[in-house]
Amino acid sequence: MLRDVDLDRALKRRVFAEDLPALRRRLAELHWHAAQASIPSLVVFEGLDGSGKGESIRLLTERLDARGFKVHPIGPPAREDGGRPWLQRFWQRIPRRGVLAIFDRSWYGRLLGERIERVVARTEWERGPRDIQAFERALVDDGALLVKLWLHIGKKEQRRRLRALERDPVERFRIAKGVWRRHARYDDWVDAADEMIELTSSARAPWTVIEANDPHFAWRKMYDVLISAFEERLAAERARAAPRARRARAAPHAAAGGDALAERRESRRTARLADVDLSVALARARYEKLLAKQQARLLPAVREMQRRGLAVIVALEGWDASGKGGAIRRLTQPLDPRGYEVHAIGAPAGDDRDHHYLWRFWRRLPAAGQLGVFDRTWYGRVLVERVEGFCGREAWSRAYLEIPEFERQLVDAGLVLVKFWMHISPEEQLRRFRERAKDPLKGWKLTPDDWRNRRKWSVYFDAADEMLARTHSTFAPWTIVEADDKYHARVKVLEKTVDAIEKAL
Amino acid sequence: MLRDVDLDRALKRRVFAEDLPALRRRLAELHWHAAQASIPSLVVFEGLDGSGKGESIRLLTERLDARGFKVHPIGPPAREDGGRPWLQRFWQRIPRRGVLAIFDRSWYGRLLGERIERVVARTEWERGPRDIQAFERALVDDGALLVKLWLHIGKKEQRRRLRALERDPVERFRIAKGVWRRHARYDDWVDAADEMIELTSSARAPWTVIEANDPHFAWRKMYDVLISAFEERLAAERARAAPRARRARAAPHAAAGGDALAERRESRRTARLADVDLSVALARARYEKLLAKQQARLLPAVREMQRRGLAVIVALEGWDASGKGGAIRRLTQPLDPRGYEVHAIGAPAGDDRDHHYLWRFWRRLPAAGQLGVFDRTWYGRVLVERVEGFCGREAWSRAYLEIPEFERQLVDAGLVLVKFWMHISPEEQLRRFRERAKDPLKGWKLTPDDWRNRRKWSVYFDAADEMLARTHSTFAPWTIVEADDKYHARVKVLEKTVDAIEKAL
Repeated sequence: MLRDVDLDRALKRRVFAEDLPALRRRLAELHWHAAQASIPSLVVFEGLDGSGKGESIRLLTERLDARGFKVHPIGPPAREDGGRPWLQRFWQRIPRRGVLAIFDRSWYGRLLGERIERVVARTEWERGPRDIQAFERALVDDGALLVKLWLHIGKKEQRRRLRALERDPVERFRIAKGVWRRHARYDDWVDAADEMIELTSSARAPWTVIEANDPHFAWRKMYDVLISAFEERLAAERARAAPRARRARAAPHAAAGGDALAERRESRRTARLADVDLSVALARARYEKLLAKQQARLLPAVREMQRRGLAVIVALEGWDASGKGGAIRRLTQPLDPRGYEVHAIGAPAGDDRDHHYLWRFWRRLPAAGQLGVFDRTWYGRVLVERVEGFCGREAWSRAYLEIPEFERQLVDAGLVLVKFWMHISPEEQLRRFRERAKDPLKGWKLTPDDWRNRRKWSVYFDAADEMLARTHSTFAPWTIVEADDKYHARVKVLEKTVDAIEKAL
Repeated sequence: MLRDVDLDRALKRRVFAEDLPALRRRLAELHWHAAQASIPSLVVFEGLDGSGKGESIRLLTERLDARGFKVHPIGPPAREDGGRPWLQRFWQRIPRRGVLAIFDRSWYGRLLGERIERVVARTEWERGPRDIQAFERALVDDGALLVKLWLHIGKKEQRRRLRALERDPVERFRIAKGVWRRHARYDDWVDAADEMIELTSSARAPWTVIEANDPHFAWRKMYDVLISAFEERLAAERARAAPRARRARAAPHAAAGGDALAERRESRRTARLADVDLSVALARARYEKLLAKQQARLLPAVREMQRRGLAVIVALEGWDASGKGGAIRRLTQPLDPRGYEVHAIGAPAGDDRDHHYLWRFWRRLPAAGQLGVFDRTWYGRVLVERVEGFCGREAWSRAYLEIPEFERQLVDAGLVLVKFWMHISPEEQLRRFRERAKDPLKGWKLTPDDWRNRRKWSVYFDAADEMLARTHSTFAPWTIVEADDKYHARVKVLEKTVDAIEKAL
């Protein structure tokens, strides 16, 4: 398809120059409105060497307010990016709401240079389109505007430009290493780009090919594409805002979440959680013996994991007062504090609040050889956020697509992921709440929220049950921990964690 | 002084165990109140190998809510920390407001291991106490609670503990490399610690020595010290909140800032800004020639700077519409986008808002070989925040101590710092505003704030003038740029930047 592009299209410099002020003004205006509407936006520039990405970005940003955009020049992956999902460095760069992120090259390097120059194995780049689709879908569904531009030039034009650059003492440095080698393989690059565009164009995230042999034509088209993309997105925002406001008056989000759960309760009572045998327990002496045994297994496993650069995530979900904290302490107690990090996940604050909800976890992934423990996790989206109506039905339903994709990418990158649901009975919870209430310390150990959540036990139960059913996969299985007995629970968390690490080694 | 510590002090295990629940409850309660009052707190644990830092931290955090604290285990500096101020990694770890940061070893490594084992040169650790004092003062003045604990054990006790650890198969890994070598130099370590405590104890940030031969005595004292530190801090907070509320009713902050400036206007009219000759200008042809010349100088300088790992900061302050953005574009235009980053500093958002105002800049320092450009800077504290009353008089006055310290540390670490004040006349500003106003684009290019600031021209003038006088130093001088003529301004910024880089090379 790129071979059919009419590269002779051109625009007179004078015509472009005449229109430029109006185009700039319009785009700056739209940029401002998008910022006011808290819309995050991403513009991706891809194209062969010499296709004019840098020049176009300079032109584009010249009149935009510097507080409202950020340019991300993307180089080849660094060694320290290894062992984590390859998209992590892009997830970390997604814009905060209201900000425009401009990518000078992007995640598409995976399907271009990294593929052609065999930086990654075939199995890795073949997974690229799927990973990219999930990434882009997550952003767009979250309200981001995404524009992807391929600046296309012919082989002759590329040669002409590279030669001109070489002759210019100021510009010469732009001739990156290997540029002539890449030029010689022009056809391979175009084939790869063609395939890339075909595999990663979707209604949500379409590619626009820009005929770039003539820069003025290319710039004009760039402005036109961006202006209409922003206009459409802002129109959609206005359209969405209106009925949403009406709906909100009619019925709050919480009701929507509740209704869905009520339906579910009717339709299926297969509740895997109902079958959990909460009577299992350990005597103290046996507990101490087993704990010591598992901790002794943990140490060499963790040391070996560090040696090999294996990253491990232990994710704990469960009822309030189900003993997550205690289990985590038994897990981390014997470890060198520099080898692990515990992330306690409460309501999002600061930068976490201003980004896609998964961003918070992407930026906290453990590095190679490190253990990351999450005290509550990304599943908050389909538990508390769903039940309490902190996000709409559409958002938490989407999470059922996004979360398995997220976990698959972790596992594909070689991370070990262990997920626990700490399960207790409502009676045991009440006993623990009362014990805490006797304690003069109020504060975070027992808040009104806890009692409120407790009153909604059956709604939470169904939400959790659905979550366990829908996110239990071969690559990221759940372990249900019978936690009415703390001793049993702690030993089980420790044992299953060590099992998972040993298996991965 | 450490030699006079009575290491025989002890407490029966039973007595400690009896009191522990109450101590824990009290501390958890205070921790909760501090979080509610948005007080950031830092607890530093230092001590020789085997002094029980890790055990104490585990005990301390066992009953604290995981969302409210974070443990920072500190290892030796990594190679990538080189070329930036050594305190940067600690600045990056300061707690968000309301959070408790616990340091398992800390910035004091500079005066202990790094000194004794000659990891850093004498001139470097000799600067340590001063750097540390400035760091701790900035935190405490900003409202942080800081507790510093030295766990002290005798030489015999250290030997006993290290041997016991060695015999334990589970605990053996805690025997860090070089531990026996350090034990052999016990006296040197104690001497260094003694000096450290003497040089870095102050009313704001005192050290507490904990006699730690007997762990129960040590833990009891740890709880007592922390509880009274939190109690005092919270009492101070309540005391401060009351009169502040009264004062706020009487007169808004803005008036305080304005008054101070009015006084100043009366007392001295030496205004260096009044003497700036704004008539300098360049013809277009000459401008283009000079611009090309300076850009041609810039390229090899930047390449050499990258090669040598020299980091450079270009900081621009100045009036609204003084042409900062245009000057920055001329500076970055010829550069490879992967070699620089432009930071546009507006009102703080997200995490930046929840930390000390300098944290925002510490976390954005350029890495080795990188150029960091700041479009507005840390001087916002003594300009817009002062004039508009976004911070109190006390806070901006303090900035006149904090900012020079910050800049000195940058320069000490070998960074190149270039500061520009872009100066225009009110008439020229009006002309530019009107030109912008003709543009249908409102939004960020010309906001009501701009007109408001303009009405306060003389107040801003005096604040800027005072800033220039008080923060012009040999290590971080200001360059005033006559910016009524954009051509002259752009060339001057470029030229002075290249001068500074070349000089450093």
